[in-house]
Amino acid sequence: MPPTQHDHRIRVCYRDTDQMGMVYYANFFVFMEIGRVELLRAIGNNYRALEESGYLIPVTHASCEYLAPARYDDLIRVRTIVQRATRLRLEFNYELWCDARETFLARGNTQHVFINPQGRPVRAPAHLIAQLQGTAEDEAE
Amino acid sequence: MPPTQHDHRIRVCYRDTDQMGMVYYANFFVFMEIGRVELLRAIGNNYRALEESGYLIPVTHASCEYLAPARYDDLIRVRTIVQRATRLRLEFNYELWCDARETFLARGNTQHVFINPQGRPVRAPAHLIAQLQGTAEDEAE
Amino acid sequence: MPPTQHDHRIRVCYRDTDQMGMVYYANFFVFMEIGRVELLRAIGNNYRALEESGYLIPVTHASCEYLAPARYDDLIRVRTIVQRATRLRLEFNYELWCDARETFLARGNTQHVFINPQGRPVRAPAHLIAQLQGTAEDEAE
Amino acid sequence: MPPTQHDHRIRVCYRDTDQMGMVYYANFFVFMEIGRVELLRAIGNNYRALEESGYLIPVTHASCEYLAPARYDDLIRVRTIVQRATRLRLEFNYELWCDARETFLARGNTQHVFINPQGRPVRAPAHLIAQLQGTAEDEAE
Repeated sequence: MPPTQHDHRIRVCYRDTDQMGMVYYANFFVFMEIGRVELLRAIGNNYRALEESGYLIPVTHASCEYLAPARYDDLIRVRTIVQRATRLRLEFNYELWCDARETFLARGNTQHVFINPQGRPVRAPAHLIAQLQGTAEDEAE
Repeated sequence: MPPTQHDHRIRVCYRDTDQMGMVYYANFFVFMEIGRVELLRAIGNNYRALEESGYLIPVTHASCEYLAPARYDDLIRVRTIVQRATRLRLEFNYELWCDARETFLARGNTQHVFINPQGRPVRAPAHLIAQLQGTAEDEAE
Repeated sequence: MPPTQHDHRIRVCYRDTDQMGMVYYANFFVFMEIGRVELLRAIGNNYRALEESGYLIPVTHASCEYLAPARYDDLIRVRTIVQRATRLRLEFNYELWCDARETFLARGNTQHVFINPQGRPVRAPAHLIAQLQGTAEDEAE
Repeated sequence: MPPTQHDHRIRVCYRDTDQMGMVYYANFFVFMEIGRVELLRAIGNNYRALEESGYLIPVTHASCEYLAPARYDDLIRVRTIVQRATRLRLEFNYELWCDARETFLARGNTQHVFINPQGRPVRAPAHLIAQLQGTAEDEAE
């Protein structure tokens, strides 16, 4: 079964740039965060609602390989790919593209755990994990 | 009695700049926030402790007049001046300078109310207001 | 003739929030910037192209009145309204709404001048000003 | 010879936090950038001057392992360590600590190349590399 993935587009705005005239390197991690939240939304989960129901998903590891500069006003396509989803851990891969310039901008990865509002590890809801694995509909049969 | 005021220095870092090669305009409001937190610290108040004891101080109005660009690596001096301090409202004025270039960068103003964690208006602690007005020591006599 | 205006929607993402659980106050100015760039795009101007042709439009004054907190994942509608457009100066008003919560979040204003890449004041292209005034089509007759 | 390293302290301000009440994960990369700029300053190099003389040092790879949350008003100590310095590439390791809470917050790594303002790879000045390697004084003998 192919991995769950989702494409989302983000317009680079002025605050994202720096005086090199490129997107500041830390902001690629912002784009990845937007990508994974939109993947969750696309499969039927709202991250705000998840937090309100007691599940926080902080990042434990993040990395990015920068291949080409992103520029002001670029429309960046962030492809978010579920690399691993268990009730204890999540891992996403990311590919960032500027389609208008046919340019592969960056490749990223983030790893996550589930905690409750008190900061204790918790097991994620089984349904969420099935959705991330793309097996939720199978289960529903 | 002269108004309570405090000078604090902030180094402009890369994320503060934009592709014009200047500090992005919204970031002046970040510098003002740092200035007022450091004024509070200088007169013996820690903003984190204030929040933990139930007093939030959100901004209700903010403005900035931009006089000259601030640049990467500038050491900006933020002068924060208590313009008004009552148990219901606070108001600060700000002057931002780059001393190395003898340049007056910007002039700002923020207005605030006191609320509790539930978002309801509350009256500020009398001692805090006395400190902000510079009358706390008189009261202590 | 009614003023030129444009509505644009922005999803509040995690970096926009602060530990009060609201959008950090300086970020409203980011939303205004996105609003005015999208207004320019809607009337046929690309701000990146304007910069590349030698016209920068820095902010000389900015203000915001905060009426209600914006929260994570809110879809904010930024209404940008051309308040004044001459070949020397621009002024925009802004209204920020959360339609899902029927909440008026903030009201803003920014003022701008035109400069060239060397920082000298320049006169804006007449056509741009006509577009901002909503008179460009009349002129074309 | 021990690696060149430098400690710099950064106060967490409001914009650095998010609604989890922690420092937003992308901002650790901002702290690393501040750390490496201050290491350069400590060994006698100003990054702004380097850029002005034609050497940009963009990031090609960045990673961070998050060990414990950083909180508002924490005074973070960023230790920047030169891991590799050649005329073609730089690599830094980082350790972020909150000394007041005796907490190891994060461990990071960034890799860099040298380019000119036109984006072409260039060889770094030999003296800069010697300074980063801690061998500059030997050369001076």
